[in-house]
Amino acid sequence: MPEYAVTARLRLSGLCFLLQILTIILFAIFVRYGPESSAGLCSQQLNCSWRNQDSGFQLPRFRDVHLQALLGFGLLVAFLSRYGLCSVATSILVVAFAIQWALLIQGFLYFFLNGKIYVGAQSMVSADFCAAAVLISTGAVLGRVNPVQMLLLTLLGVTLFSLNEYILLRLMGVSDSGGSLTVHAFGAFFGLVVSRILYQRHMDKRKEQQEDTRHQPDVFAVFGTIYLWIFWPSFTSATTIHHNTEPWAVLNTYFSLAASTMATFVLSPVLQEESTLQVVQIQDATLAGVAVMGMAGEMLVTPFGALIAGFLAGLIPPLGFRFLTPILRSRLKTQDACGVLNVHGLPGVLGSLLGTLLAALATADAYGGRLELVFPLVAQGSRTVTDQALCQLCALPVTLLLATVGGTLTG
Amino acid sequence: MPEYAVTARLRLSGLCFLLQILTIILFAIFVRYGPESSAGLCSQQLNCSWRNQDSGFQLPRFRDVHLQALLGFGLLVAFLSRYGLCSVATSILVVAFAIQWALLIQGFLYFFLNGKIYVGAQSMVSADFCAAAVLISTGAVLGRVNPVQMLLLTLLGVTLFSLNEYILLRLMGVSDSGGSLTVHAFGAFFGLVVSRILYQRHMDKRKEQQEDTRHQPDVFAVFGTIYLWIFWPSFTSATTIHHNTEPWAVLNTYFSLAASTMATFVLSPVLQEESTLQVVQIQDATLAGVAVMGMAGEMLVTPFGALIAGFLAGLIPPLGFRFLTPILRSRLKTQDACGVLNVHGLPGVLGSLLGTLLAALATADAYGGRLELVFPLVAQGSRTVTDQALCQLCALPVTLLLATVGGTLTG
Amino acid sequence: MPEYAVTARLRLSGLCFLLQILTIILFAIFVRYGPESSAGLCSQQLNCSWRNQDSGFQLPRFRDVHLQALLGFGLLVAFLSRYGLCSVATSILVVAFAIQWALLIQGFLYFFLNGKIYVGAQSMVSADFCAAAVLISTGAVLGRVNPVQMLLLTLLGVTLFSLNEYILLRLMGVSDSGGSLTVHAFGAFFGLVVSRILYQRHMDKRKEQQEDTRHQPDVFAVFGTIYLWIFWPSFTSATTIHHNTEPWAVLNTYFSLAASTMATFVLSPVLQEESTLQVVQIQDATLAGVAVMGMAGEMLVTPFGALIAGFLAGLIPPLGFRFLTPILRSRLKTQDACGVLNVHGLPGVLGSLLGTLLAALATADAYGGRLELVFPLVAQGSRTVTDQALCQLCALPVTLLLATVGGTLTG
Repeated sequence: MPEYAVTARLRLSGLCFLLQILTIILFAIFVRYGPESSAGLCSQQLNCSWRNQDSGFQLPRFRDVHLQALLGFGLLVAFLSRYGLCSVATSILVVAFAIQWALLIQGFLYFFLNGKIYVGAQSMVSADFCAAAVLISTGAVLGRVNPVQMLLLTLLGVTLFSLNEYILLRLMGVSDSGGSLTVHAFGAFFGLVVSRILYQRHMDKRKEQQEDTRHQPDVFAVFGTIYLWIFWPSFTSATTIHHNTEPWAVLNTYFSLAASTMATFVLSPVLQEESTLQVVQIQDATLAGVAVMGMAGEMLVTPFGALIAGFLAGLIPPLGFRFLTPILRSRLKTQDACGVLNVHGLPGVLGSLLGTLLAALATADAYGGRLELVFPLVAQGSRTVTDQALCQLCALPVTLLLATVGGTLTG
Repeated sequence: MPEYAVTARLRLSGLCFLLQILTIILFAIFVRYGPESSAGLCSQQLNCSWRNQDSGFQLPRFRDVHLQALLGFGLLVAFLSRYGLCSVATSILVVAFAIQWALLIQGFLYFFLNGKIYVGAQSMVSADFCAAAVLISTGAVLGRVNPVQMLLLTLLGVTLFSLNEYILLRLMGVSDSGGSLTVHAFGAFFGLVVSRILYQRHMDKRKEQQEDTRHQPDVFAVFGTIYLWIFWPSFTSATTIHHNTEPWAVLNTYFSLAASTMATFVLSPVLQEESTLQVVQIQDATLAGVAVMGMAGEMLVTPFGALIAGFLAGLIPPLGFRFLTPILRSRLKTQDACGVLNVHGLPGVLGSLLGTLLAALATADAYGGRLELVFPLVAQGSRTVTDQALCQLCALPVTLLLATVGGTLTG
Repeated sequence: MPEYAVTARLRLSGLCFLLQILTIILFAIFVRYGPESSAGLCSQQLNCSWRNQDSGFQLPRFRDVHLQALLGFGLLVAFLSRYGLCSVATSILVVAFAIQWALLIQGFLYFFLNGKIYVGAQSMVSADFCAAAVLISTGAVLGRVNPVQMLLLTLLGVTLFSLNEYILLRLMGVSDSGGSLTVHAFGAFFGLVVSRILYQRHMDKRKEQQEDTRHQPDVFAVFGTIYLWIFWPSFTSATTIHHNTEPWAVLNTYFSLAASTMATFVLSPVLQEESTLQVVQIQDATLAGVAVMGMAGEMLVTPFGALIAGFLAGLIPPLGFRFLTPILRSRLKTQDACGVLNVHGLPGVLGSLLGTLLAALATADAYGGRLELVFPLVAQGSRTVTDQALCQLCALPVTLLLATVGGTLTG
């Protein structure tokens, strides 16, 4: 159907043009650089206390988050896709649009002042987080939607993500600096629900074909794994509230990575028939190991806790791919092209449960001066640790609910 | 002709040896580390005010510029080359020699004091910029010159680049922090003129063969695009004069990137027969989007301006490859192996025109305290904004003239 | 032998599980975060003066070292391996375990206080150095040991590396900030001795097969070379004692890189029959160029010295592969799968000899305020430069002895 293909391409071209023009107009009306660009004003006039890093440490970390958003997820999406390199192009399109759109939506929610949105380096960081969540969602539906649908999914996904993040972080006061819940769990469940709605049985046949074309993408898996190892610790700690809590989040994430990699080597040989271990599995374990540290990273006070959490998280993807994915496909009629449930969804949920537990156990003794930084409301006395733990726990169903409702509407 | 090949290899070996020995001797005579190595002395005794960053922020940024010089351009050069991976080896040779030579030439122009050149981190950064320009030039002639010619081209290209940069930045007082003109436009036109002189009709035949061997290099295109997205904002802002103007340059470049990517998705489906979008095109758009921000990056005061400029720049490569490259090849008998005219040359010129416009419109109100940093001569009252704009405009023909004359001599 | 394969896989799985559980238990008993996590306490209560960077500059550099440990060596190991991508998986396993184990062993040696090990960012950096040395060792035996043996080799290699480092840096007061001796030379000779013990004649046959499957890994070589160029200067200077000596180490390494690359282009065309230069050779030269700068990087006071040292180091790998490797294989019955002797071993020894020479020539005039930073014992007057040079010289046989004895035991 070359006729159809031409129409589809022109439709994609037109949609891109429309969205870009719309964005430019909205930017021209609303968006301005802050007087000092990411310094001063923010902390005084706008109450942007939710993510107030020092601006001096902003720029290098901003670059690291980028690296994650594009490399980590872009490569993840790449490795299983049917169209190989073409899906990289779509991923970049999604990122390019998601960042602009997220800047607008989050600007209206957080940085709106006198009819203008003042942007700076920190609005970029949160836009990158949002793009990462949307990329996880696209991982679930990859191969079954065309780029036009992908763009519309991005449009709605970004809006819902920002809304969810606003409710959790601002209204409920939940601590989720690395996005266990807001990024990983929301992205995965949103994508899965959309995938469920779009389920088409006749796609199963094509699914088989893609298995044998995985040689080239393995290069992506290797590089993806290496980059995750290197840069994710920075990603997790990018939105940590103050500078001096960072080392814990970085080191915890790092221990979790090492343990989850070991877990894959423990479990894969038992579950699999093939004798060689594929790098893709290590990548999955690595992703799970960091997803679990998203919320708990800055709360854990002992290194061995991070090792245990990482080890448990590393067990999820092999078990999930072995037992859960077939059930999903046959019973629930949901296809999960990149296994986002196993890699992002369940570890994210585990991470948020761990965060709840740690919040309930938090005492002023163990945290010392850190308490004020990790749980500001507890330190101020306006909330007990039990209330904080309840809030953390409530954040989970709220996220799942929003993801489900939003996914249904989008589908 | 194995005989010939042996002679050629020995000639390359001998030339490398001679040049390296010459460089070592020159270094031994002239080059010393500054007493404080990139701090103190420079701003007092040598008038190195043209690029005086704080040394504290020097090191990390120095690494980013490296990343660009080697990765961005090296990969660009790689993806279209006839010899595939072999051209990477040549690119690395060019970089290895260009950096040493640029350090000497620029040392004589800027850092010469009491018969010694005092080097530090900032001389490294400008040597990297120079290596980037030379790599763009080699992109135009790739596949038609042997490594020996490539080394001689590097020798002359570095000298001319340093001369051009010295005239523009020091003598004319032009603001071009990201090198729209000095790096992108100069490199592209210098390479094109050399290519014009070296034109050999019988090469067209081989040109056809190289089209079908592009599968492997697509991996390079993917990684190249991702790195450009991540690290170019730092590249553009590496020579920004003072620390606190940086965020604008970074954010402007980033908006420009997003918009130029969207532009590719708008235009490519219309112009092309193939249904899938190749990653190489996104890479071209990305490069164009950053080339246009080289000069204007630190001058733009509104985000939507960066979106518009990026969008326009993103339209250039697809249009250029469709309409301009065939004309170049048939009429002007100039081959442009990597399309450097479309990707670097024209966006660079567009960027410098934009910089002229912005310089003419610059008012103390819009810039505030920044005026002194972006246009120091205007802020000191020794020059009006109109004069500054004229200077910026004059820089364009000066660069083109030097590139043309130099390219003719080199050819 | 599928039966055998199943047993082997289960043994790997069981060993991973045991080691991970053991590590978790040891961590639970001994390891705690330092009260300030990498600040304060360390310099007061523990005498951790051997590597006391400012903590403010710790985090970004910590990431760079990572990049090296994983990318540089991981890719090196990848490119020659028989099993292609599978060896990447094994490398990641080695790194994941080596880091945990090194943290424990080095913790007992350096950071043990009141029955607890207090970890922070700087213990992570030294654990990464250790993982790098073990990866070099695995390079020598790659393809002839299974993952279980690899894990045991890691276990012993980490212990011996930490012991050697402790003797050299703490007890003998040797300056070796970039690890010419501790990382490169120790790793190479340890691996070679193990390889000698494990020598099996019937492997030579398989050796031939692996030559023709090198197309895919060349992509790794390209990326490996580019990353080495970009990030190694940071690696070499990661443990430089104080902040203001860093620029010299970075610039020296950088000059050495450029010169060693030129050296490869000088020598390879003469020694080789093939007309095109392979990127792998440039990678080898790059590695040699940085290995030689490990010890001398912070001592060299003139740029041309770095150029000469780099040029000499760059000559070693091509000569070594041409003349030394065949002798090794036929006479000494030692296989060196990745050429670690030529790439790491000999340049490391050359670097340590150069360091000895420079230590003997060190005068207060040439170093100025730096003397105290590079050679603290000399500056304090407790040791003359001759004594320091003797110490540096003695470090070489001590390292070789430990590597030989340890390798024999391990084998």
